[in-house]
Amino acid sequence: MNAPIPTSHLVPDIHPREVPVALMEALKKRFAERCSTALVVREQHGRDESSFEAPPPAAVVFAESTADVADAVKLAGDYSVPVIPFGVGTSLEGHLLAVQGGISIDVSRMNQVLSINAEDLTVTVQPGVTRKQLNEAVKSTGLFFPIDPGADATLGGMSATRASGTNAVRYGTMRENVLALQVVTASGDIIRTGTRAKKSAAGYDLTRLMVGSEGTLGVITEVTVRLYPLPEAISAAICSFPSIEAAVRTTIQIIQMGIPIARVELIDRNTVRMVNAYAHLSLREEPLLLMEFHGSPAGVKEQAELVQEIASEFGGNAFEWATTPEERTRLWTARHNAYFAAIQSKPGCRAISTDTCVPISRLADCLLDSVAEADASGIPYFLVGHVGDGNFHFGYLIDPSKPSEREIAEQLNHALVTRALRLEGTCTGEHGVGLHKMGFLVTETGAGAVDMMRSIKRALDPKNIMNPGKIFSL
Amino acid sequence: MNAPIPTSHLVPDIHPREVPVALMEALKKRFAERCSTALVVREQHGRDESSFEAPPPAAVVFAESTADVADAVKLAGDYSVPVIPFGVGTSLEGHLLAVQGGISIDVSRMNQVLSINAEDLTVTVQPGVTRKQLNEAVKSTGLFFPIDPGADATLGGMSATRASGTNAVRYGTMRENVLALQVVTASGDIIRTGTRAKKSAAGYDLTRLMVGSEGTLGVITEVTVRLYPLPEAISAAICSFPSIEAAVRTTIQIIQMGIPIARVELIDRNTVRMVNAYAHLSLREEPLLLMEFHGSPAGVKEQAELVQEIASEFGGNAFEWATTPEERTRLWTARHNAYFAAIQSKPGCRAISTDTCVPISRLADCLLDSVAEADASGIPYFLVGHVGDGNFHFGYLIDPSKPSEREIAEQLNHALVTRALRLEGTCTGEHGVGLHKMGFLVTETGAGAVDMMRSIKRALDPKNIMNPGKIFSL
Repeated sequence: MNAPIPTSHLVPDIHPREVPVALMEALKKRFAERCSTALVVREQHGRDESSFEAPPPAAVVFAESTADVADAVKLAGDYSVPVIPFGVGTSLEGHLLAVQGGISIDVSRMNQVLSINAEDLTVTVQPGVTRKQLNEAVKSTGLFFPIDPGADATLGGMSATRASGTNAVRYGTMRENVLALQVVTASGDIIRTGTRAKKSAAGYDLTRLMVGSEGTLGVITEVTVRLYPLPEAISAAICSFPSIEAAVRTTIQIIQMGIPIARVELIDRNTVRMVNAYAHLSLREEPLLLMEFHGSPAGVKEQAELVQEIASEFGGNAFEWATTPEERTRLWTARHNAYFAAIQSKPGCRAISTDTCVPISRLADCLLDSVAEADASGIPYFLVGHVGDGNFHFGYLIDPSKPSEREIAEQLNHALVTRALRLEGTCTGEHGVGLHKMGFLVTETGAGAVDMMRSIKRALDPKNIMNPGKIFSL
Repeated sequence: MNAPIPTSHLVPDIHPREVPVALMEALKKRFAERCSTALVVREQHGRDESSFEAPPPAAVVFAESTADVADAVKLAGDYSVPVIPFGVGTSLEGHLLAVQGGISIDVSRMNQVLSINAEDLTVTVQPGVTRKQLNEAVKSTGLFFPIDPGADATLGGMSATRASGTNAVRYGTMRENVLALQVVTASGDIIRTGTRAKKSAAGYDLTRLMVGSEGTLGVITEVTVRLYPLPEAISAAICSFPSIEAAVRTTIQIIQMGIPIARVELIDRNTVRMVNAYAHLSLREEPLLLMEFHGSPAGVKEQAELVQEIASEFGGNAFEWATTPEERTRLWTARHNAYFAAIQSKPGCRAISTDTCVPISRLADCLLDSVAEADASGIPYFLVGHVGDGNFHFGYLIDPSKPSEREIAEQLNHALVTRALRLEGTCTGEHGVGLHKMGFLVTETGAGAVDMMRSIKRALDPKNIMNPGKIFSL
């Protein structure tokens, strides 16, 4: 807890490159009113949901096509000026901040669903399509796209950050669900990284190199993802536990038995209180597991019975079931509102989020010690977790005007990450590295692996214009 | 069918680099009798299951540790001499051929299971562990490793070629199942590409960059993979169909309905005959689907009933069930013997294998036209398919002493790949590019994507010593 925190974890290294007038003129000429330099627009594109701040980008280009993106990248490249892809701004680790200046390329207007191939369980979309929009578009086919990071993020952004969320325990993350991408490279060329075949051994896996590259290797301009048949039966349940440990041990056993649970989410007592206050609910104020089961009616029944048996061994209380879509929506909305409920519980606060993920057998060790540390710190926090994957988030609620609170929160985070790495886990299960975890990444993977990432970056982006200053320093 | 075939599809481009005496002396000094220059050893390491031939490597180093591999790579790097990792030699596309000369690094003695983490459903092994050895080692834990490419390949080789096989329809390929690797890079450094956490967003996905890189970016020296609980119930069945089309349409509907079938394999009538003759079986000589269902007893029953209903709509005959482990082993041994049965059906022949994979809705189109072409050619063939993934293999049985037969087989392959690409598929579902599909790779992904692969290769292996001349030319 008292180890010194590298300042790179606290303050981004800001050194904007100059944006030449000639570039601004060229962008204005090419994009006219779709290139905005209005301060309010730039400011909106110069931040994300992280607690970091940096001067906004010099301009925002609203792309409407892959050709727009390619032209913007080429123009920026001519002047070695950074470009930062922007979807809807829900990233959490400072990914969108113009720490080296440059141009934001907003792809939110590229929001067409290009082709639904229901018979192949695939869909191809432009990068500005959001996950809710996608699910609306495919609803009539009887299929759905399961990845649900909470925020209504874009498919481009979700790909770029290797997002996952509540359904990943059963359906995997963006890593497993992106089949192919179209990408504008640093040179402004347009490539495709794969086909619609379900599997392939055709050369280097450029798709997965791009997924999670956080805009540092290219701008994603099309995304092909897998869809799944809507389960015949869906059932959701809440179960309360006498302690976090009991909830976690229940989860561990569910996973180890191979029960194909679709969601298993932990909410701690604190957070339940915040959610109840925010959404006028009356959830039992104890550690909860929110669960969802997908399958045939018989399969869902079987899973639910097994899970109830396990939960009761650990003192879990009677399940409350939500079987209608409305009840389920209410339940998952409560879960997704945890962040906003927490923010509202301390007016003016910012949340510093953690994102560790450990092998499931280490989950109790990792979580319980960190809860004890957080309780002892006096900093209020929320705690939610995709515990079926060994992934959980503390959100330390700090007063941004008090540097000491930020420092304590970062110390807690540092202790948690150190613990997770010792337990063979990762500093980030799903949020990405961005600005916040650059130091942790080196500790986690070792300097050699980060050097390999750097070599790839230099090879594919020799001018270092693609979202520079993120993931690692060059 | 009559388009000209680039000669690169037929004959590898062979230009061995000189191996200096000083390197040979240094290797002998470091590895003593574990560095062999015996012709028989070199020849055994200079070929794989492909029909290509090239002069053997100059020496074979039998590595027993990661340090051995690192030292061998460093020594070879000092003299810019190629290194080719070797497991058990079951690759199919010329991956192991020393087309640019160099040293073979045999990792088959690195065959320790390093740690079984049953409670996390993970295991870490050395690269020379084979899949059967792995399953033997984890048997007592109630877990298993599902990836089954037929051959008893090594985990290192399976990772390097992004292998899959019969179980991939349910459990995914090596892409989805490798969690982390230890890799010796071209500079002889040792890196780790991930942790044991189930998911991670920590920087570039080096794990998946290495998986499928065919030894061209590094030598894999440790593999951490996911395990799965042995299903409570397993049931296998054979169903015969009046036509390949009926079998394929049954498969398409199974997949589109989201039935979690564990295996669904097609064998055509020809191949059934060959298998019957080879293994003294009496399988019905009609197109067959071999299927396997995993789950709870009730779940397996439910899946099997649904599949029987679908099959009977397409004229599928009464299922023959295999529920005991012995019966199942017999069934899958028959499937895995298809290759050997076919080879034996035409003494002295070599098989030229295809490996296309298409979106499931295109499977019938792709397969049926190719069957018609193959039938018209007069070249005998076998046909098996992981049809649940849209992946199938023709094996054209050619007399290697008759160039005209090879040419016809390559023309059939060319027509098939062209068709698969038109149908939004890939030239290789699971065998990799090796020497055989370098031309197809460019057609499939476009020159821009291959250029990106080349840039990565140059950045990570500036002396081009890691299995050079495979996947793409430099």
